[in-house]
Amino acid sequence: MADKVYPYEQLSQFALAVFKKIGCPEEQAVLATKVLLSADLRGIDSHGIARLSGYVRLWESQRVNATPDVRVVHESPSTAVVDGDGGLGLVVAPHAMKIAIEKARVAGTGWVAVKHSNHFGIAGYHAMMALEHDMIGIAMTNASPLVAPTFSVERLLGTNPIAVAIPADTQPPFVADFATTTAANGKLEILQRKGLDAPIGWIQKKNGEASINANELKDGGALIPLGSDREHGSHKGFCLGAWVDIFSAVLSGANYGPWVPPFVAFLSPPPDPVGEGIGHFFGAMRVDAFRPAQEFKSHMDNWINRFRRAETVVGQEKLIIPGDPERKTNALRLKEGIPLNPKVVEDLQLLGEKLQVSW
Amino acid sequence: MADKVYPYEQLSQFALAVFKKIGCPEEQAVLATKVLLSADLRGIDSHGIARLSGYVRLWESQRVNATPDVRVVHESPSTAVVDGDGGLGLVVAPHAMKIAIEKARVAGTGWVAVKHSNHFGIAGYHAMMALEHDMIGIAMTNASPLVAPTFSVERLLGTNPIAVAIPADTQPPFVADFATTTAANGKLEILQRKGLDAPIGWIQKKNGEASINANELKDGGALIPLGSDREHGSHKGFCLGAWVDIFSAVLSGANYGPWVPPFVAFLSPPPDPVGEGIGHFFGAMRVDAFRPAQEFKSHMDNWINRFRRAETVVGQEKLIIPGDPERKTNALRLKEGIPLNPKVVEDLQLLGEKLQVSW
Repeated sequence: MADKVYPYEQLSQFALAVFKKIGCPEEQAVLATKVLLSADLRGIDSHGIARLSGYVRLWESQRVNATPDVRVVHESPSTAVVDGDGGLGLVVAPHAMKIAIEKARVAGTGWVAVKHSNHFGIAGYHAMMALEHDMIGIAMTNASPLVAPTFSVERLLGTNPIAVAIPADTQPPFVADFATTTAANGKLEILQRKGLDAPIGWIQKKNGEASINANELKDGGALIPLGSDREHGSHKGFCLGAWVDIFSAVLSGANYGPWVPPFVAFLSPPPDPVGEGIGHFFGAMRVDAFRPAQEFKSHMDNWINRFRRAETVVGQEKLIIPGDPERKTNALRLKEGIPLNPKVVEDLQLLGEKLQVSW
Repeated sequence: MADKVYPYEQLSQFALAVFKKIGCPEEQAVLATKVLLSADLRGIDSHGIARLSGYVRLWESQRVNATPDVRVVHESPSTAVVDGDGGLGLVVAPHAMKIAIEKARVAGTGWVAVKHSNHFGIAGYHAMMALEHDMIGIAMTNASPLVAPTFSVERLLGTNPIAVAIPADTQPPFVADFATTTAANGKLEILQRKGLDAPIGWIQKKNGEASINANELKDGGALIPLGSDREHGSHKGFCLGAWVDIFSAVLSGANYGPWVPPFVAFLSPPPDPVGEGIGHFFGAMRVDAFRPAQEFKSHMDNWINRFRRAETVVGQEKLIIPGDPERKTNALRLKEGIPLNPKVVEDLQLLGEKLQVSW
């Protein structure tokens, strides 16, 4: 069955009603909805409304606190640690990023590590919050262990994404947002739904051998760090994933590595936690703490323009500047609606029935 | 001809004499020597004494200032921009990292962007300076354009390395230090010397097609961002390289992208510079600006121990923690000496004759 397209407003109203139904205060429900649906708008379908029932199941199993007391528990002029009190990452993360921005206003930069949180949607949303303040934004999070470091057969890291958002002047901002694995889990899910094989280098079998089975994770397999294998630099992808894990969780006091609680409610968190919840890390850097903002932004325009007009390989019209495809998708989907897979729609309809929220 | 092994002291005295001969003040010559040879000790042979004559040729062509006035030209409580005054990166970089550490002492973190510098040796040296202060260290630099972003046939970025050094307690520190390409240029040089082919995914031809010719760069080819191709995430490697370039040079006012001056003196810098020299970026984060240092370091021990004892693929005894191999090589080479390729030795002997410095 083909995907049907739904107006942003319809999905937004539904998600808002669901968040309110599980007890989120109005303002937090609005924020959670906006963050969640930014994924659908930007074309990162795996992290958007398709996950709504997953968040609700976490709440049902008392692993999400709908009325968290999010607070700073440690700080210095340019840093803070935030305790998310088990709240939705969709709410905790923007709160923490705001603190990073406030710190940067005074100290030049602000760096906030977060513990006791949950899945925060797309990293790019939070990093981009810095842009309107003429700041560079950085966002990272750890996640359920699905990734085997180079030479390991154990899943010890999440897909641990990094987002970096950098303002320009007349050009749109540079926005990189990527999992530190060869392919994000969402890409595998697309292959699974279509019954297609995965390229060699995305996943490995339980014993560490290469696999093209998109369902390999169900049989104990693992995702592979960016680089695909040792010869092509997978140890560098491991370094990146480890960096995100340590900044997000060892700095904050959250769970790290294989102790990160799974997103799916049917799997229990490890019985021997080393911290609280999952962890995030945010940064905001005032551009004019380095050089006049206008000067910086003009050079960013020049940087982007130069790369945009690079000579390309045959068959490829131009080089893709990070953030370009997502921005285009965002504009298109706001206008024409968001395509949803029929299985996702069915799941949302069941959710609506259960919570008595009209679809 | 096989590599001969030379005592650290011999190489160190030779490099020191060379740096003094070109006019470096004693203290700076000592520092430059220490930074340069840290690459040989750690096994990153491409960035060590093999480059000494290259630095001298840059000085001869008046592109290195042996007596720079390295100074802060812009700052905020947690940031600074340093003008390297055309000095050796080997001297400018540790100076800038010290400023980052001083800023972190007061503000919790310190972030320093550097312009008008030159090649700074290995990124890991500078990042590791933070460790003895119970700080996390970060170091990045841009470099001569040798890398084609995904879909480009033009070389627009350097191998732009990132280093992150994180202190632990009883365990040695976590030290990641890697080029944001599939393979560092030094790895290609090894294949060139041995007359061997490169794996697919390391380099591309002038027209963007895959190549296994380790000498392809001489024919207009390019290195490839980490990920090897679009399907395996090379656009993520491009994001990383771009991130390093922008932080190092657009924040500081150095040259970026294809405008970065080449390391080799026989190639002239582009005639239309967009900034001054090459750029670096450094960060220092006081661990106790986030949580008590002892608590953090104990959890780092736990993190490292857990990953170290991961179950591994057949034939691989254990998982490699970033920094382990370099630390072992460092200890071995301090004791048993540093192996040098005969071509490198010949080059150093010629350099000694020219400068009347005894080898």
